[in-house]
Amino acid sequence: MIDGFEIGHCTRDEPGWLTGTTVVLCREGAMGGVDVRGGGPGTRETDLLDPVTMIQQVHAVVLTGGSAYGLAAADGVMAGLEAEHIGFGVGTLEHQVVPIVPAAVIFDLNRGGEFAHRPDAATGAAALAAASTADPEQGCVGVGTGAVAGGLKGGFGYAETVTAQGYRVAAAVAVNAAGSVIDPATGRLYADRTHRLPDPTDEERTALAGVGGGASFATTIGVVMTDARLTKAQASKVAQVGHDGMARAIRPLHGMTDGDTVFCLSSQRKPLPEQPYEQVFAINDILSAGADAFTDACFGAITHAGSRGEWASWSELAPSTVHPAG
Amino acid sequence: MIDGFEIGHCTRDEPGWLTGTTVVLCREGAMGGVDVRGGGPGTRETDLLDPVTMIQQVHAVVLTGGSAYGLAAADGVMAGLEAEHIGFGVGTLEHQVVPIVPAAVIFDLNRGGEFAHRPDAATGAAALAAASTADPEQGCVGVGTGAVAGGLKGGFGYAETVTAQGYRVAAAVAVNAAGSVIDPATGRLYADRTHRLPDPTDEERTALAGVGGGASFATTIGVVMTDARLTKAQASKVAQVGHDGMARAIRPLHGMTDGDTVFCLSSQRKPLPEQPYEQVFAINDILSAGADAFTDACFGAITHAGSRGEWASWSELAPSTVHPAG
Repeated sequence: MIDGFEIGHCTRDEPGWLTGTTVVLCREGAMGGVDVRGGGPGTRETDLLDPVTMIQQVHAVVLTGGSAYGLAAADGVMAGLEAEHIGFGVGTLEHQVVPIVPAAVIFDLNRGGEFAHRPDAATGAAALAAASTADPEQGCVGVGTGAVAGGLKGGFGYAETVTAQGYRVAAAVAVNAAGSVIDPATGRLYADRTHRLPDPTDEERTALAGVGGGASFATTIGVVMTDARLTKAQASKVAQVGHDGMARAIRPLHGMTDGDTVFCLSSQRKPLPEQPYEQVFAINDILSAGADAFTDACFGAITHAGSRGEWASWSELAPSTVHPAG
Repeated sequence: MIDGFEIGHCTRDEPGWLTGTTVVLCREGAMGGVDVRGGGPGTRETDLLDPVTMIQQVHAVVLTGGSAYGLAAADGVMAGLEAEHIGFGVGTLEHQVVPIVPAAVIFDLNRGGEFAHRPDAATGAAALAAASTADPEQGCVGVGTGAVAGGLKGGFGYAETVTAQGYRVAAAVAVNAAGSVIDPATGRLYADRTHRLPDPTDEERTALAGVGGGASFATTIGVVMTDARLTKAQASKVAQVGHDGMARAIRPLHGMTDGDTVFCLSSQRKPLPEQPYEQVFAINDILSAGADAFTDACFGAITHAGSRGEWASWSELAPSTVHPAG
């Protein structure tokens, strides 16, 4: 994990449930940006991430299941941060704060069998309470619990990298797509951009090809994190290019029934180069690292997910790729 | 009120409280648009009002006090609408709906004396339960309960008009501004665009001029409603021009500590002219009627408000204008 950030999951996979919430936390405040590019978004507090607006510190981003109902998870995160006096100060007393907690949802209603089982304020509070600086668990956890990717089981993924200039960049992602994550020409995962896995066997390719079509409603969401000291406009740019990494992992994408949304959070710890030319190219590297981290986090989400309900996982259908013989 | 719409208030003005929530309801679904133009917005579900996105029916707009904490009021409105099976259908069963409920907040924290007293899901549910087709009460009610306008008591206002082509246009507004609603050159309300009130007396002008400066944090929000069958892009345009009506009522406006936001809801009941030239001019009339209704609703908010706490009202400081002698 990058210094300054914490991630916490609340997984709701008891009988009748298949959903959850993940919080990306920056208790000291992070510069934030967002790019909402899906046709069916469900969001909260995204307008204050417009670079022309006032807010310069975001305290958490909530990624949650439950479609628009799940936006209630942010209420619980706000309450927990308020109790810690973490937020934008709006009065003379220390406790008079408004935590800045943007949120985006994925559509996973009914996947556990009960339409009314979805994240609420308590789920958000539990994800906040679980937040830690350790690298987060991947797969069917938190917001990824009920995620499905083109008929294959989706999940939550995390990946991290460093640019040539030493800026750290990471992505936390919930892959829940109407489109597919499997390249029909090769049977490989689109997200396996560095060929980390061997080719699936012919039998595995047949099994993967038999996976049902995508869900009617979907949505892939995530957060690109960095320690680079970005302006608000630069953070928006990082969020925008994060969608390129999503596009390389899922096809088709950004349709009318996807609410695909990427946030960026910058912990402000490492200044950008002062020389304008150097600064531009440092940012370029952060942009491309953010997109690659997003793709890699999608890879982590799919490969760590286990089968749930009617949704078979990559590791069940193509086990030889994850656990090669010998 | 315009056919197809209902408005409901929940007023929280018991001791220690001064806040509330107002719901503008369209149970049959309305085409929606929004323009967020303040520097400090607090919003929910505004991204799905972008004309390129999927959603074509909004079921309610929540206007609420409580700053970002107040966004929880929308949870209660969603729950109430779900119980009525009102929402975007996402499954095969009638109850499998997601109500589309955008929301915006005003900053009124601590005005009743207790920082933790602010709208929550129950407040939203109560506003929904109170919704009616009657013209709504104005003044210190609902979202206007704790509103302040440049040191003068603000409130909730409503106004309605008809265009030359017979399209009905209305505005529901919470005036809560850092800027002033009083023209220092005349002592009159900026929002009194048709000179409905007589000039204040010299004594009243002195009293009005003594009103303290605006609040540090503010936000004026509202909804322009019409029965015209607008597209989503046209509804966005109406929301945009609604800000002109706000600008004529409050000065300065749209600052960094305002979250000024205007929604538009169209009940789709009366088709626009088919001939393109006629259609354009019919829309122009709706745009200007929407802006005027917004200004008039601001007038209604200020003139109906009564004094509360440390905030004196227009009717207390300039009584001769509201209750002229003889």
